[in-house]
Amino acid sequence: MVAEKIKTMMESSSFIRKMFETGAKLKLEFGAENVYDFSLGNPAMDPPKEFTKILLEKAADHHMHRYMPNAGYVDVRKKVADYISSEQKTYITENDVVMTSGAGGALNTVLKTIINPGDKIIASIPCFMEYKFYCDNHGGELELVNGLEDFNLDIEAIETAITQKTAAVIINSPNNPSGRIYPQETIVKLSDMLVRKSKETGRTIYLISDEPYRKIIYNNIGVPSVMDAYKNSIVCTSYSKDLSIPGERIGWLTVNPNAEDYTNLINGIILCNRILGYVNAPALMQRTIAELQGISVDIDIYRKKRDFLVKKLKEFGYNFRIPDGTFYLFVEAPGGDDMEIVDLLKDEKILVVPGRGFSLPGYFRIAYCVSDSVIEGSMIGFKRTAEKLGLRQETK
Amino acid sequence: MVAEKIKTMMESSSFIRKMFETGAKLKLEFGAENVYDFSLGNPAMDPPKEFTKILLEKAADHHMHRYMPNAGYVDVRKKVADYISSEQKTYITENDVVMTSGAGGALNTVLKTIINPGDKIIASIPCFMEYKFYCDNHGGELELVNGLEDFNLDIEAIETAITQKTAAVIINSPNNPSGRIYPQETIVKLSDMLVRKSKETGRTIYLISDEPYRKIIYNNIGVPSVMDAYKNSIVCTSYSKDLSIPGERIGWLTVNPNAEDYTNLINGIILCNRILGYVNAPALMQRTIAELQGISVDIDIYRKKRDFLVKKLKEFGYNFRIPDGTFYLFVEAPGGDDMEIVDLLKDEKILVVPGRGFSLPGYFRIAYCVSDSVIEGSMIGFKRTAEKLGLRQETK
Repeated sequence: MVAEKIKTMMESSSFIRKMFETGAKLKLEFGAENVYDFSLGNPAMDPPKEFTKILLEKAADHHMHRYMPNAGYVDVRKKVADYISSEQKTYITENDVVMTSGAGGALNTVLKTIINPGDKIIASIPCFMEYKFYCDNHGGELELVNGLEDFNLDIEAIETAITQKTAAVIINSPNNPSGRIYPQETIVKLSDMLVRKSKETGRTIYLISDEPYRKIIYNNIGVPSVMDAYKNSIVCTSYSKDLSIPGERIGWLTVNPNAEDYTNLINGIILCNRILGYVNAPALMQRTIAELQGISVDIDIYRKKRDFLVKKLKEFGYNFRIPDGTFYLFVEAPGGDDMEIVDLLKDEKILVVPGRGFSLPGYFRIAYCVSDSVIEGSMIGFKRTAEKLGLRQETK
Repeated sequence: MVAEKIKTMMESSSFIRKMFETGAKLKLEFGAENVYDFSLGNPAMDPPKEFTKILLEKAADHHMHRYMPNAGYVDVRKKVADYISSEQKTYITENDVVMTSGAGGALNTVLKTIINPGDKIIASIPCFMEYKFYCDNHGGELELVNGLEDFNLDIEAIETAITQKTAAVIINSPNNPSGRIYPQETIVKLSDMLVRKSKETGRTIYLISDEPYRKIIYNNIGVPSVMDAYKNSIVCTSYSKDLSIPGERIGWLTVNPNAEDYTNLINGIILCNRILGYVNAPALMQRTIAELQGISVDIDIYRKKRDFLVKKLKEFGYNFRIPDGTFYLFVEAPGGDDMEIVDLLKDEKILVVPGRGFSLPGYFRIAYCVSDSVIEGSMIGFKRTAEKLGLRQETK
């Protein structure tokens, strides 16, 4: 029989399943092209041309599908490390990098390595709720603290939550679902606080930075380096979003070479990557992304989608903070009821995710990594819904 | 700091690390071509030509790297299901199949789905020791029982070990490290016993069959179907060994459609595949293997390697059971001390794995998935070691 915990998880996540079932039913009934599906962070954009070019080159060499060191090919890690060194303003070598099955694989591997039974991992609301499962997988517990109104981290709230049970803080910037980039001064403040609290609790509190949207940013805002700010830091990421290849499960993690307990940490991570059954990140994709450091899809396409959505939804009377990055728009649920607006939009064949999916029920998330026709086609539905709710339309 | 458990694991597996370090040192000192490395199940043989052909076709289509259903592409699962149906003599549909990150991913996903805290999973010695970690990952415990002298399952021993805490029995046939295929009558006997014990304990005992070596068999012996024999069965496998692509992390699991609690089981498995961070099996490899059902490397090449080794090692006086399948030879440690023979062979620059790595210290494992030159080059070292140990040479 199925484990009790898994049964409970299936029941508690049934609202998400129902949502997807409803979506699938709508698509079946009205045709997929008549449903405006903004529910998934699954980029419709093709990978950059360079990706396919390199992939074909690498795939033609049929000697390259064997096991390699569990951490990944040394030469691949070298290229990634060189890139990270400049991105994170910290000198990283191939020894500090582990190639992973996406950011999901990276996070699970890190969490398994550091969690003792009953440990807590702190994250700020709103956040990607798979973190809850990832912590639970390894006997830990995700502890959510409220963020600020503008979706920035509330450093005092995080500080208050820290106890001797706190193993790590996870941050995700640019943030899914809010699109918020935590500014440099916030990262420095967080770092100072973690140094102080680590001393106070007598325990190293690691900072895990989940950065799959680092390259998807607007107006050259830039994402501050956590490595540069805090020595006990671990960065996890994937090429899923910036190369539009989420199905391929390729990413990496890097441990700050100055981290406490560094040797155990990196060796423990390599062990956990193996024993969790990942063994190693997919070989061909490792070879491919090695040649694509710094490459991404054309972010300007996402900027245009964002700008169009921002302009129109403002006109219709919706309220939101303009995202600094990611391809998400996190919109206030008019009246505060996320399920009501999700249902109303569904009547317009528009699929979005209720804020409760990110622990913030007063909002809903629009994933605008879809084609322009989906965005344009949905406008009338967003407008009608706004009118139905009596939102105050902006005068043009 | 690193979790206590992970620290202990690192220490307890230090003998394996030391072995690999010694190997690496030998290769550095004498050149890789002068070291005979039989330690890893990492096929030196290239994948079949069809693999690279299909891979290049699929890689040229750059619209295919997105997320798909967590269980995998429906059309891929359909092709796999059709193949399994004939292989397992059980009607399997795409709904019963989940594409996974190799057999390691499949096993972890299944174990997470069925293990309640403190549950036991039974396996027969000798066996692949990663099972120990896989069970522990999800709060369970691997319980090892002795096999028979000829490496067949000891059904009575398994029966004796079963309690209400037993969630499943894992078998691996053809077996790593012994090369044993459990015969049809053993599978039937196991099945009858599990039916009886499930009734007795009031708990469904699942049979998990780990079958990555199913296609690597000699003399058309054939591997019996567990699906046909036992309804509460789950098959896990990968394309790592039979297509020589272990670095790519592609495999599948299938749940017997007649299994008890079937709906929860398959939905739980799909959930666990996602929340363990696998999310889905690598997209391009799914597309590729879909077209390669029933294809494998030329098994006759392994048969020739086996036959050569068997003939020579017998001549030198080593004792072993001739393997029915896999590319492993599990040899008695002369005098019974596996570490002694491993060390003696190391002096000849021959690397093998001591039997304790499979919970059977009286043996050592030769992984002969290496080039002929490695096998031939090692013969003098195997001979000298046999002479040193005073093994009785066969008269030709």
